[in-house]
Amino acid sequence: MGQVAAIIGGGVIGGGWAARFLLMGWDVRVFDPDTEAERKIGEVIANARRSLPGLSDVALPPEGALSFHDTMSDAVAGAVWIQESVPERLELKRKVYQTVQEHCDPAAVIASSTSGFKPSELQGCATRPEQIVVAHPFNPVYLLPLVELVPTDKNPVVFVQQAKDILTDIGMYPLHVRAEIDAHIADRFLEAVWREALWLIKDGIATTEEIDNAIRYGFGLRWAQMGLFETYRIAGGEAGMRHFIEQFGPCLEWPWTKLMDVPELTDDLIDQVAGQSDAQSGHLSIRELERARDNNLVTILRGLKTQDWGAGALLKAHDARLTGQIALPDDLTQPIVTVERVVPLDWTDYNGHMNEAKYLQAFGDATDRMMWLVGCDTDYIASGSSFFTAETHIRHLDEVHAGAMIRVETQVLQGEGKKMHLFHRMFEGDRELATGEHFLLHVSLETRRACDPDDRVAVPLGRVAAAHAALPRPDGAGAAVGVR
Amino acid sequence: MGQVAAIIGGGVIGGGWAARFLLMGWDVRVFDPDTEAERKIGEVIANARRSLPGLSDVALPPEGALSFHDTMSDAVAGAVWIQESVPERLELKRKVYQTVQEHCDPAAVIASSTSGFKPSELQGCATRPEQIVVAHPFNPVYLLPLVELVPTDKNPVVFVQQAKDILTDIGMYPLHVRAEIDAHIADRFLEAVWREALWLIKDGIATTEEIDNAIRYGFGLRWAQMGLFETYRIAGGEAGMRHFIEQFGPCLEWPWTKLMDVPELTDDLIDQVAGQSDAQSGHLSIRELERARDNNLVTILRGLKTQDWGAGALLKAHDARLTGQIALPDDLTQPIVTVERVVPLDWTDYNGHMNEAKYLQAFGDATDRMMWLVGCDTDYIASGSSFFTAETHIRHLDEVHAGAMIRVETQVLQGEGKKMHLFHRMFEGDRELATGEHFLLHVSLETRRACDPDDRVAVPLGRVAAAHAALPRPDGAGAAVGVR
Repeated sequence: MGQVAAIIGGGVIGGGWAARFLLMGWDVRVFDPDTEAERKIGEVIANARRSLPGLSDVALPPEGALSFHDTMSDAVAGAVWIQESVPERLELKRKVYQTVQEHCDPAAVIASSTSGFKPSELQGCATRPEQIVVAHPFNPVYLLPLVELVPTDKNPVVFVQQAKDILTDIGMYPLHVRAEIDAHIADRFLEAVWREALWLIKDGIATTEEIDNAIRYGFGLRWAQMGLFETYRIAGGEAGMRHFIEQFGPCLEWPWTKLMDVPELTDDLIDQVAGQSDAQSGHLSIRELERARDNNLVTILRGLKTQDWGAGALLKAHDARLTGQIALPDDLTQPIVTVERVVPLDWTDYNGHMNEAKYLQAFGDATDRMMWLVGCDTDYIASGSSFFTAETHIRHLDEVHAGAMIRVETQVLQGEGKKMHLFHRMFEGDRELATGEHFLLHVSLETRRACDPDDRVAVPLGRVAAAHAALPRPDGAGAAVGVR
Repeated sequence: MGQVAAIIGGGVIGGGWAARFLLMGWDVRVFDPDTEAERKIGEVIANARRSLPGLSDVALPPEGALSFHDTMSDAVAGAVWIQESVPERLELKRKVYQTVQEHCDPAAVIASSTSGFKPSELQGCATRPEQIVVAHPFNPVYLLPLVELVPTDKNPVVFVQQAKDILTDIGMYPLHVRAEIDAHIADRFLEAVWREALWLIKDGIATTEEIDNAIRYGFGLRWAQMGLFETYRIAGGEAGMRHFIEQFGPCLEWPWTKLMDVPELTDDLIDQVAGQSDAQSGHLSIRELERARDNNLVTILRGLKTQDWGAGALLKAHDARLTGQIALPDDLTQPIVTVERVVPLDWTDYNGHMNEAKYLQAFGDATDRMMWLVGCDTDYIASGSSFFTAETHIRHLDEVHAGAMIRVETQVLQGEGKKMHLFHRMFEGDRELATGEHFLLHVSLETRRACDPDDRVAVPLGRVAAAHAALPRPDGAGAAVGVR
């Protein structure tokens, strides 16, 4: 695009803005008198480079050019967007706008990252108040889409629309805050929770860790996908939001928080909440909302499991307890069961069919289990070698849906020297769903080159291969694609 | 396991408990005088059956037996765990405990789902207060791990430990609330946010939808994985929690919420918060926490993208804007670029290498793009036919890391009648990473059987196949696994 954004004030927030504009193809010009600014912004951009571009399933525009400038006038030259993230002092911010407006394009957006000031306060005595607005982002700015866009009556409608369009273009969600208010919207919730949390710590009820766990193992997972009202709409059941308020309204009078200034629950207020909730979510029935919620929760929980973090770490530990000791079966005259699991909701398309790539996921899990069974476990891998997959041949024989219990049976076709050749068959009950033929090489993790395994693996692998040599060669083994 | 849980009071919460115990292998005995109880609990269990078993990457124990009982005495017979989820009226709950205790095992756990009462209130005049405790779960009980376990001094230490062990066994996280307090811990936050949200609606600042978006596009995503304090620890930067409090402490005095009863920020309180945060997160540097946070956020955001929901729907729309019009290139004398993207963080293992199954994900995306290019787009599929993958052969040639820009070039080896035979080559720059040979059949989505495509697809596919026939046959095409 070649458009220019000026970043006034680096730090975590300014750096996050710089990173987002830059990786979305904008040229970014930074002004920050801090001698450490270049290093600090560099660290934020490094974090953004490792995480943001991959969020997208297509290529982002080529990265823009980043430059640092000694004067504000130089930084704002040619800028379409000027983002101010200097410390939260009104006089300082007003001085910045004065200098910026002496040098910038009168059509540029001057946006403040402030959480503490209302836009009318910022516009105060400015030369051109109409080009100043609040655009309050959330850390990390390069990943979280929310930005609270708070204009005043002084900002022309077309100007506000232009600001929204630019924020959307760089992958953000501009939440148009229609009435200015202290702390805008989101920070009012953050502040309420922060105050309550400090009380709990002060009163010795809970520690920071207990409070974090109370959030991230429970309602935090709900809020990540539906927020507050849509979640409660479901809690109200078929009767919806009105029922929820009527059921839980009385708690408002109870001492459930230290924060006791409560609104009166008039019929008008109930009508407002219920009506807005209908407008927001009424196109989906409660059953549909429940299923969407559960799909989202399963996806988030299983995602966190891959990261071994938060609620996902709990799931992983639970699986480990269910699994117990992993050992080769005594009877090696049959293929070995290497996977036995249910097809999860996050493995399926909108029709409930298991996605193509998840067949390889299941066969890969089967391979991992087989490696473990023949001694290539965590300790062995930590000692410096492992098996790498060189080739895979998958044949899809039948379809399978979410919720089905699948089983993979594995036959070792070859297991000598550096070669491990496996043949997996996937079943639901007696119905064969797919086969996966996997050819692996034992490699040194240092040189990344093939080498023979040591006896910890070579001996058990050889034993299984010898026993499985007596089994018939499975149908489809050794076949090329398209050959029957 | 064959252990027995009694569920006193169905509904959404009781039903959620029933589902969790049942699917974790417990026998479940339900008492609920509501004539609709069996239907209502059945609906919750149906939701749980479609979502919970697949959370696990191993098989859960066989589902237990579910039975409905006309009397409480019958329901609690033989129960190790008795979960009470009746309406929030203290006298009613106390009556339930009296009847239950007349018939249950004195060693059983009697747990209440209450959010409104403290355990000492429930124990009140009970025959055996030592077996009554609060176990407050979060909806949906079958998916969210958090349960607040609130005992009193009357509950023996071994009893509390036994209750924790059972909750852990059914996949939950018992948060031991050490001091009883109104609304326990999590609901205090929910209540504070609810009160603030009602003010915002009453004052006309924001609608329910705007409030939900302010949560789920921003801090909700942070809270799902780190909660409040670990998030703010990062915000404090290298100086950590103490710096954060000092920086943002003054806001406590500002009118940032309607909820104005604030704790005084004494040195003692700051020491407590900073010390607890060190104990919780001090084993990780701020840089490590930032990267863990970003890995988690990318995983959650991309997970929600597969569901086309919340912040994930925003990402999907952004990708669509970046992609623009999809059309066959004019020059068909070369393979067609079908994927161009960065390897995302959630595609890689802990070493940053792309996971085996993600090669097929990328090749599957390349196949989808090729289908689209030859006319098998959303409209065509909606008209009742599509291509299904019958076979895939992947060769891994080199490794690739998170953050790398990868490109897939696709050659059509065959495209006539119902057959589409594709050869994908994956590159990072000039370095070839893998090949994927895919054989697809055109199928009727109604009969799920192979059939010829109509001209909307047959003509463009034939045109590409004819042009690509002039290209040399790629290395590795038509090879069987293990054959060089």
